[in-house]
Amino acid sequence: MRISINNNSPADREGVYDLLPFLLNPFNIARFEAGKVIIGDRRAYPFARTFVTCETVDEVASAIKDMVTQGGGPWLAAVNALRIVANSQTDPMPALKRARDVLVATRPTNTAIRLRLDEVLAAANTAIKENKSVDDAIASSITQTLQGIYDDYAIRARAMADLIEDGDGILTNCFAEAGFILALAFAARDGKKISAYTPETRPYLQGAKLTAPSIHEIGVDVNLITDNMPAHIMSEGKIQKYITAADLITVDGHVVNKIGTFQNAISAHAHDIPFFAFAWGRDDSKIQRADIEIEERDPKEIRLALGTPTTIDSINARYPTFDITPPKYVAGVVTIHGVVSPYTLRNFSVW
Amino acid sequence: MRISINNNSPADREGVYDLLPFLLNPFNIARFEAGKVIIGDRRAYPFARTFVTCETVDEVASAIKDMVTQGGGPWLAAVNALRIVANSQTDPMPALKRARDVLVATRPTNTAIRLRLDEVLAAANTAIKENKSVDDAIASSITQTLQGIYDDYAIRARAMADLIEDGDGILTNCFAEAGFILALAFAARDGKKISAYTPETRPYLQGAKLTAPSIHEIGVDVNLITDNMPAHIMSEGKIQKYITAADLITVDGHVVNKIGTFQNAISAHAHDIPFFAFAWGRDDSKIQRADIEIEERDPKEIRLALGTPTTIDSINARYPTFDITPPKYVAGVVTIHGVVSPYTLRNFSVW
Repeated sequence: MRISINNNSPADREGVYDLLPFLLNPFNIARFEAGKVIIGDRRAYPFARTFVTCETVDEVASAIKDMVTQGGGPWLAAVNALRIVANSQTDPMPALKRARDVLVATRPTNTAIRLRLDEVLAAANTAIKENKSVDDAIASSITQTLQGIYDDYAIRARAMADLIEDGDGILTNCFAEAGFILALAFAARDGKKISAYTPETRPYLQGAKLTAPSIHEIGVDVNLITDNMPAHIMSEGKIQKYITAADLITVDGHVVNKIGTFQNAISAHAHDIPFFAFAWGRDDSKIQRADIEIEERDPKEIRLALGTPTTIDSINARYPTFDITPPKYVAGVVTIHGVVSPYTLRNFSVW
Repeated sequence: MRISINNNSPADREGVYDLLPFLLNPFNIARFEAGKVIIGDRRAYPFARTFVTCETVDEVASAIKDMVTQGGGPWLAAVNALRIVANSQTDPMPALKRARDVLVATRPTNTAIRLRLDEVLAAANTAIKENKSVDDAIASSITQTLQGIYDDYAIRARAMADLIEDGDGILTNCFAEAGFILALAFAARDGKKISAYTPETRPYLQGAKLTAPSIHEIGVDVNLITDNMPAHIMSEGKIQKYITAADLITVDGHVVNKIGTFQNAISAHAHDIPFFAFAWGRDDSKIQRADIEIEERDPKEIRLALGTPTTIDSINARYPTFDITPPKYVAGVVTIHGVVSPYTLRNFSVW
């Protein structure tokens, strides 16, 4: 199943699917196949390209909680999970709503899961009213959403790529998904020679496991560093842009992203390096900093590196998964309208 | 062998040896015993309290290179290594000088190794001229040096402890050795309730393995975090002081310390949190930033966490081991003269 896309869409015009590395092709992220949800196992990558097969909604929820997929992956796994229960009863709506609640609860900071589930539920509801196939309606809604998202990725990536200059060194954090990877791919295809620096992103090492191999796969020079090195690399003059994704951006311009994003932004600011964050949409329930709930995960994960203890069990730990970068450290938000000031987001109904 | 100490010394008056955790007792760091150098194996700690036994100078050099000991440990291992060759020949000086060169080359950024070796060599030279036992002279020089160092630790720790306030949260980086640990111990003994936050310090995880257990051992509340969390913890209002050791501080006030120290200092500055660095002495060959050589270790170590690969071998990596914090981010240098401005270090012949 290749995601079909309108030939006139921006994504297609930029050749997005041919440029994306293995990990970012939607087919490899999460798909519904023969009654099951197949999720690309990012924990196994880059050492193996394997998939987790889920037969129930609870199994999908567990997979999301267990970090089988992350970043832009959970929502796609979640919406596909709805297809498991779509044909289960004469009126599937109660089961769909229960599934929705189970899936939303997996990652409270990840607004995309809730928003996409509610979009798909609305399509299912319409199908029920019109006496059409609920499963077809969900499948069609997912395909449409994906097409729109990848078009938007391409539009944002083009806006960012145009700001990247020949010779730039680019710092990122965690795994900044298709928008960021496409921006590098576009810039490289445009003939700009660039280098990327990817912090490993403890505790789950997404930078080492996902970002660095994906950038390597698209043929861009990449250097893995530990999370305590960004400011030093900046002081060497090797970084000209700092670019990340964002799990959410408030309407007043606060960037919520993987822990470490904030301190790199402070260091970038101190070195006159602009910080650009990719938007994925607007969430009207997140207007300002006070609306943000920072997910705090089990601290025992901090005492492990790839499953091996780093210290003794009696040591307390903290595990905030995200941090908040205030707009004063944000040079631009990469939106479907171009790269805009974080202070102007309120002017746009969608980003 | 307990290191003897003058009853009237400041260290003894503060009860330093009773307050120190296992790891920081000089007897457990490195000692000469029955012709061999016994080095506390910090790689095994905190899971086991074991020692590496070295029978030759090359074995000691390898142990230092292999990070068996680090921070304030390498110089003590190095000077004890000279005793292996002190009685080997009628004129041991050529062998001692060869040993000195081998040991200095192990860690070029660690100035303490060179300075202490040269002090001990000078004592050996005097003994030869005066026809006295070279080994006795070296042993006596080491004991004297240790006594002076622990007295100085206690003096600096007292100056820092007096600035710590009841209720303070204290961020550190890597393993800040006896000065820092004693400052916490003094503050706690003075009745101040404090909490420490220790970044794990990738790639070797000294914060998780050495710092957190040592602080825990002295009865102070400690929280392990990953290296990408300090700014977020600051934003929560939980940090009031940022305190580290320093591998060296230039005469013009640049603090050279474990990678990550710099970016935490930038974040601390942005949050109005003062940064204090413990001095260990003055090195007149390091006047300014340009005099600093940053050790770059084998990048393949960055692709490993506790020996397990974090990514595929084809990914490039960087491994600068130290970074440089300019004096504008340093609120005070903790010296034997008290806590002083980094801009005033030139006024002191010793720190």
